[in-house]
Amino acid sequence: MTSDAATPVLAHVDMHLDESLERLKGLLRIPSISTDPAYKAECDKAADWLVDELADLGFDAAKHPTPGHPMVVAQDDEGEGMHLLFYGHYDVQPVDPLELWARDPFDPQVEETPRGRVIRGRGAADDKGQLMTFVEACRAWKAVHGNLPLKVSMFFEGEEESGSPSLVPYMKEHAEDLKADLALICDTGMFDRETPAITTALRGLAKIELVITGPDKDLHSGMYGGAARNPAHVLSKILADLHDENGACTLEGFYDGVPELSDAQKAQWDNLGFDAEAFLNGVGLSVPAGEKGRSVLEMIWSRPTCEVNGMTSGYTGAGFKTVLPSKATAKISFRLVGTQDPKAVLKALEAHIKARMPADCRYVINEPEGSSATTMPVENPAFEAARQALSDEWPKPAAFIGCGGSIPIAGHFQTILGMDSMLIGFGNDDDQIHSPNEKYDLTAFHKGIRSWVRVLDALSKA
Amino acid sequence: MTSDAATPVLAHVDMHLDESLERLKGLLRIPSISTDPAYKAECDKAADWLVDELADLGFDAAKHPTPGHPMVVAQDDEGEGMHLLFYGHYDVQPVDPLELWARDPFDPQVEETPRGRVIRGRGAADDKGQLMTFVEACRAWKAVHGNLPLKVSMFFEGEEESGSPSLVPYMKEHAEDLKADLALICDTGMFDRETPAITTALRGLAKIELVITGPDKDLHSGMYGGAARNPAHVLSKILADLHDENGACTLEGFYDGVPELSDAQKAQWDNLGFDAEAFLNGVGLSVPAGEKGRSVLEMIWSRPTCEVNGMTSGYTGAGFKTVLPSKATAKISFRLVGTQDPKAVLKALEAHIKARMPADCRYVINEPEGSSATTMPVENPAFEAARQALSDEWPKPAAFIGCGGSIPIAGHFQTILGMDSMLIGFGNDDDQIHSPNEKYDLTAFHKGIRSWVRVLDALSKA
Repeated sequence: MTSDAATPVLAHVDMHLDESLERLKGLLRIPSISTDPAYKAECDKAADWLVDELADLGFDAAKHPTPGHPMVVAQDDEGEGMHLLFYGHYDVQPVDPLELWARDPFDPQVEETPRGRVIRGRGAADDKGQLMTFVEACRAWKAVHGNLPLKVSMFFEGEEESGSPSLVPYMKEHAEDLKADLALICDTGMFDRETPAITTALRGLAKIELVITGPDKDLHSGMYGGAARNPAHVLSKILADLHDENGACTLEGFYDGVPELSDAQKAQWDNLGFDAEAFLNGVGLSVPAGEKGRSVLEMIWSRPTCEVNGMTSGYTGAGFKTVLPSKATAKISFRLVGTQDPKAVLKALEAHIKARMPADCRYVINEPEGSSATTMPVENPAFEAARQALSDEWPKPAAFIGCGGSIPIAGHFQTILGMDSMLIGFGNDDDQIHSPNEKYDLTAFHKGIRSWVRVLDALSKA
Repeated sequence: MTSDAATPVLAHVDMHLDESLERLKGLLRIPSISTDPAYKAECDKAADWLVDELADLGFDAAKHPTPGHPMVVAQDDEGEGMHLLFYGHYDVQPVDPLELWARDPFDPQVEETPRGRVIRGRGAADDKGQLMTFVEACRAWKAVHGNLPLKVSMFFEGEEESGSPSLVPYMKEHAEDLKADLALICDTGMFDRETPAITTALRGLAKIELVITGPDKDLHSGMYGGAARNPAHVLSKILADLHDENGACTLEGFYDGVPELSDAQKAQWDNLGFDAEAFLNGVGLSVPAGEKGRSVLEMIWSRPTCEVNGMTSGYTGAGFKTVLPSKATAKISFRLVGTQDPKAVLKALEAHIKARMPADCRYVINEPEGSSATTMPVENPAFEAARQALSDEWPKPAAFIGCGGSIPIAGHFQTILGMDSMLIGFGNDDDQIHSPNEKYDLTAFHKGIRSWVRVLDALSKA
């Protein structure tokens, strides 16, 4: 069902898709890797690019400095009724290992693949391609009707891939400028290629980097081996002990605040026909690794996890060096659900580390950070209106789903601005976000823009 | 007690020490890192340097190609009586982490330190400085007497720091050219700064690189965490399980062939007054890490060990990347004693790995290598003659000691050439071999040359 207002806008989107794509490429060419200080100027450049883009669209747009990478905030007050705040992030993940990319990650191109045309490049799906679906929907609407059908603000950050250190302070300081009736966040995926989704359960995230020091320098393993404490052994023990033989996390109190799925929720998810085998096969695996007795969908949507994201110690170059390492380092993160307290989890982790630390080893915990899980209020009528709008665009009706990733911004909108968030995104499982050869389907981009046109229309009447 | 023949040679060594040092610096300037293919030409250059040096001394010297780095072989047949084969290696360890070096590792210089003057640079102690003590002793002897007092061959390889892949095939093919009455090896240390040593027990070495693959690419830990197998967890478990709570290695049959110390040996070692606390404190540690109930000296001289020399998985750069790694890699090595069989140890290791490998993970074992431990025949009268000669040069009498490091060449001389080896070296515990800021004491270099003059003299009469 398409309204009179939306129909010509959808046609305009179809007509001008190539131009939309060229604009997306322009943004993808900027290597805005937020976690690496070497790319600071590039993050700034991406923010400027967005300010220019939004100003060109008639938004009152500006770049706002922070101690880290800048925020981009833009308003368009000409519409009537509900006020939306759209959020996205212009920063991207690092690209290493670069040798696994089939092309320069910052020279985006459209490629033909067995599953259709894609735009390939770092940030194509996470999150530049996604945020541009909304920007392009606004551009089309304005091109056809002059004014948007409701008040729209946009809010883009450049630190999402590096823990968003400036986000909360900025939101607290500028709460009045940012507050709206509803937040829209485009950083999530479809349920499958034909089924759009509104993500209503988001896991939280807690993380640390652990550095253990044993000897004060790398030693010769023949001279010191056996007698001198090897921090790689200490680290291995700490990491191995994080899970029991049933795949459960062993940290004291880890499962406090982890809710069981309601029967209704379980039934809805069972009905989605999720193919766990295909999900694992798609990445070269076949055996679910997590908690015994839980389905794969539960593991990735509603169960907390504990993962080692990286570790290093000693000599890791070509050949062999019989060194006894001085240091061993691991990056460890947790996905949190329900009311799990990130601070309590990190405290339990530190107790676990401490209990396994030999008297003459030292440890440092770097960059501890945590955010709680968030659950969205699906009883807000805007959710059902948006679900209908998405169902009109795609082959199958839209679903309310959980999400494995952490999108702390939704929690911040709730706690700092008292505002509900609606998470709608068009990513697919094979987009390889955070991996080499990231891509975004052209269908996702095209129908994503069209989806937002429909959602804007639907919300303007909700 | 110094003989008439040795006295003027010792004086000549003292007079010309600065020139000896300049020659050593020339060799140290060549970055002959054998494990890294990028330095192949430099290894070749170091071999040429030695050929030139030995030819200049009147040796019949030549470089012999191998599938890896070349061998240098030189003969001087003018002397009478016993035929000695001196062995050393011209290759060096990698230098990373380079940022921990106080100076360019390949721009050697003499530095004043609180413990005396040292020559600082990669290879200063391991093994270029050591091998040059013997070359310089021959140079001095020839300068004074024209001819050496016995037949001397020299044999230098360039792959000692990278597992010596060409050594055994080369020795087998050229057994007749290499065979002598006794091998001298200069790649070991003093017992302490005042006590020279002949190393009579050498540990063997077995090693592998293990690569575990889980998912076929790095994954987003939010999308796949929990459900997808994390190879960093698999590796941690494998490594953590290598030792029990008493510090013993858990591999099946690992202690087969490990002898207990004889009471006599134990008494001799107890008499050395080894300061275990100072040994550990010297590298920032205080608690012995190895098998409970064993002394530190036992751990490093006569007990087998199992050490992780390096490991890496996932994202290890600056900042945080919530990746679920595709691969996890570890370099693992064992020091072997008695009649432990390196092949059996590596087989037990693979069984240990296999038993902990999830059905959908794969593993590869790279570069497996092993060599047995070696024990020297101290009843050969040359050993007592050399011990006396060393005792004449240094403040305290020389000792027969064990060695933690592995010097497979001694075993090869025994098994392939049927020849005993005498290991005499002048390294100190704080030489930082295999670590940043490697150095060799000037005293070690100077008195090392003088020691060889005395040993040549003593052996010519033995």
